[in-house]
Amino acid sequence: MPKPSRRGAQMPESPIRKLVPLANKAKARGITVHHLNIGQPDIKTPEVGLAAMRATTREILEYSPSEGILSLREKLVEYYNRFEIRVDVEDIIVTTGGSEAVLFAFMACLDPGDEIIVPEPAYANYTAFAISAGAVIKPLLCSIETGFALPPVEEFEKLITPKTKAIMICNPNNPTGYLYTSQEMKQIRDLVKKYDLYLFSDEVYREFCYTGAPYISAFHLEGIENNVVLVDSVSKRYSECGIRIGALITKNPLIRQDVMKFCQARLSPPLLGQIVAEASIDAPKSYMLDMYNEYVDRRKFLIDEINRIPGCYTPIPMGAFYTVARLPIDDADRFCAWLLSDFEYNGQTVMIAPASGFYTTPGVGKDEVRLAYCIGKSQLAEAVVVLRKALEAYPGRTTT
Amino acid sequence: MPKPSRRGAQMPESPIRKLVPLANKAKARGITVHHLNIGQPDIKTPEVGLAAMRATTREILEYSPSEGILSLREKLVEYYNRFEIRVDVEDIIVTTGGSEAVLFAFMACLDPGDEIIVPEPAYANYTAFAISAGAVIKPLLCSIETGFALPPVEEFEKLITPKTKAIMICNPNNPTGYLYTSQEMKQIRDLVKKYDLYLFSDEVYREFCYTGAPYISAFHLEGIENNVVLVDSVSKRYSECGIRIGALITKNPLIRQDVMKFCQARLSPPLLGQIVAEASIDAPKSYMLDMYNEYVDRRKFLIDEINRIPGCYTPIPMGAFYTVARLPIDDADRFCAWLLSDFEYNGQTVMIAPASGFYTTPGVGKDEVRLAYCIGKSQLAEAVVVLRKALEAYPGRTTT
Repeated sequence: MPKPSRRGAQMPESPIRKLVPLANKAKARGITVHHLNIGQPDIKTPEVGLAAMRATTREILEYSPSEGILSLREKLVEYYNRFEIRVDVEDIIVTTGGSEAVLFAFMACLDPGDEIIVPEPAYANYTAFAISAGAVIKPLLCSIETGFALPPVEEFEKLITPKTKAIMICNPNNPTGYLYTSQEMKQIRDLVKKYDLYLFSDEVYREFCYTGAPYISAFHLEGIENNVVLVDSVSKRYSECGIRIGALITKNPLIRQDVMKFCQARLSPPLLGQIVAEASIDAPKSYMLDMYNEYVDRRKFLIDEINRIPGCYTPIPMGAFYTVARLPIDDADRFCAWLLSDFEYNGQTVMIAPASGFYTTPGVGKDEVRLAYCIGKSQLAEAVVVLRKALEAYPGRTTT
Repeated sequence: MPKPSRRGAQMPESPIRKLVPLANKAKARGITVHHLNIGQPDIKTPEVGLAAMRATTREILEYSPSEGILSLREKLVEYYNRFEIRVDVEDIIVTTGGSEAVLFAFMACLDPGDEIIVPEPAYANYTAFAISAGAVIKPLLCSIETGFALPPVEEFEKLITPKTKAIMICNPNNPTGYLYTSQEMKQIRDLVKKYDLYLFSDEVYREFCYTGAPYISAFHLEGIENNVVLVDSVSKRYSECGIRIGALITKNPLIRQDVMKFCQARLSPPLLGQIVAEASIDAPKSYMLDMYNEYVDRRKFLIDEINRIPGCYTPIPMGAFYTVARLPIDDADRFCAWLLSDFEYNGQTVMIAPASGFYTTPGVGKDEVRLAYCIGKSQLAEAVVVLRKALEAYPGRTTT
């Protein structure tokens, strides 16, 4: 039997994945599991999107253009304009989810051994795509103590080597909900310019900014237009994660040209998803507003409740629909497994993502978890009660 | 402006892509372009597939499982059984097109520098996926003289080095239409076994076998069950290339485990495509038979006509919907460009794929082209007349 690749062995395994069998067993025992672990919104997909799919009169579901359907790309130009992101149709390449945009950005921009500085905690799959491209993630540790703000510029510069080719940010951030300030974005811009780096900016949560603080896109930064590769997705904003439609956007013509080669090799992004995505951009304002208000409510509720549990602390996230919390526990991986295998309160338990999956620096964030608020407030209320009771009962509790 | 990766520069550019602007210009001049260049069938997608899409009552188009929807995987087990391919649900991982199956097979099985022996002419995008994974394609030249049969086993063995990790075949073959004989498949099996190689077998054209000769799947070969990674797609057989649904199938548990890590990183295959694909597997027998008969007709017509043009020769393809033909020309790239930029007959011309895109060995196949018969017979008839006239007029004609 031939051996698998070393790359396969290096691929990270999400700590959440390891919990799935435990959750299934808990459910089999009749326990209700409240999912605070997933970024799958429970909001309905816009009816205009579903209707466009049902109304298609195509008789052959044929390849779409490798760069995506023109009318979708035109609609996206309009959409980005709402955020004062000025891009042209030719700057936009439609991808199979934001995931493919990250992979193709790495493939087209980075050689094996090249380094990407990523503030952490960070979206775990960046590591997977870096491994696929042979690139190396260099984590820049952000702390829950400072609400996951960026460390001073000197900390960035300590990580810069001749192999450093890029900085990657997620803004608003998954998993922390942090929204980079205008000062932080300026700091990133200056670094990108000084060292002529790529700035990969994952902005899939732009619709989810709650504090009135401005959302600053990488495309709002002046003087680094050719360095920016923006990663986007319609998944979260229209609650259509399953259609797999994202975008890679760059004004750098050399990168676009090379990304297109990877696009051509995989032939085309999903046709039906593009039809749904294009229509969804016309979702009524009331749809977007209702969704927004729902998350505002949930966020306030969850943050308040978590910070009321003795020994727990979470900063107030400014965006996305996650928060990272510190719990009074010895080990989040152990605690999250214990919740599913050894605990119940009134026939309920909670499933939570240990933060270990979001850190590359070893041993960091052992008492942190990511909580998603993609479930309704009444269910969130139950989940919070269960979490409080669980922390009282957990044998590995560290503070009293 | 930071530099793109070396990988991007290595990515092959399809010679067909270079012809697209010429074709567009020809159309702009009012010329009808007959497309013999594309593998996009003109057959309608099965109505059951389209109906399943329209009938979906889902209100949230959410992530599907990373390995694909269970009911689709179960349906595929049934489907493969029709071809005496005995696989279990857990052997089947649904991918975003056959393309992703090739990429993930390479990623999970091969390390940078590892070599894959591929009989050529071959599907050009294998090279693109090999470059993505840092692997190297070692072409094994097959000749039009012998109808693209496999060379003797000694020719394979000449290519084997300590870095050889895999053989990749496409059966029935794109671009040649060749169907590997039982003797050839046995030869491949013996090599795979002797050197403990992976056998990547792309079998997306299995429904298109015309001669009564048996279709032998890599899974029919005994004693190499753990070496086989089968690549499949519903694109061609149900004329739904745009939905991007394929599969990677292997009985090797280590490879499955690692492929799943790549699947989890990209979250899920397209949901809507999976709904269409699952329903399409129940397309009525009459749909499959009508399609089959249509291709039988087109194939006979095209092959007969090409071989009647003075100086032209094509072997009789046994499967798929392509054939590679030798034409009396100096350079197929030049000829194919000339057809679009300098020629017309009765307001018509043809677009053809130069075979250079299917060869890695430099300078080979310069007088060869790939012809696809994905257009109706009356249009094929017009195209063949145009091709005959073009060959009479072409200044780079080599024989009289």
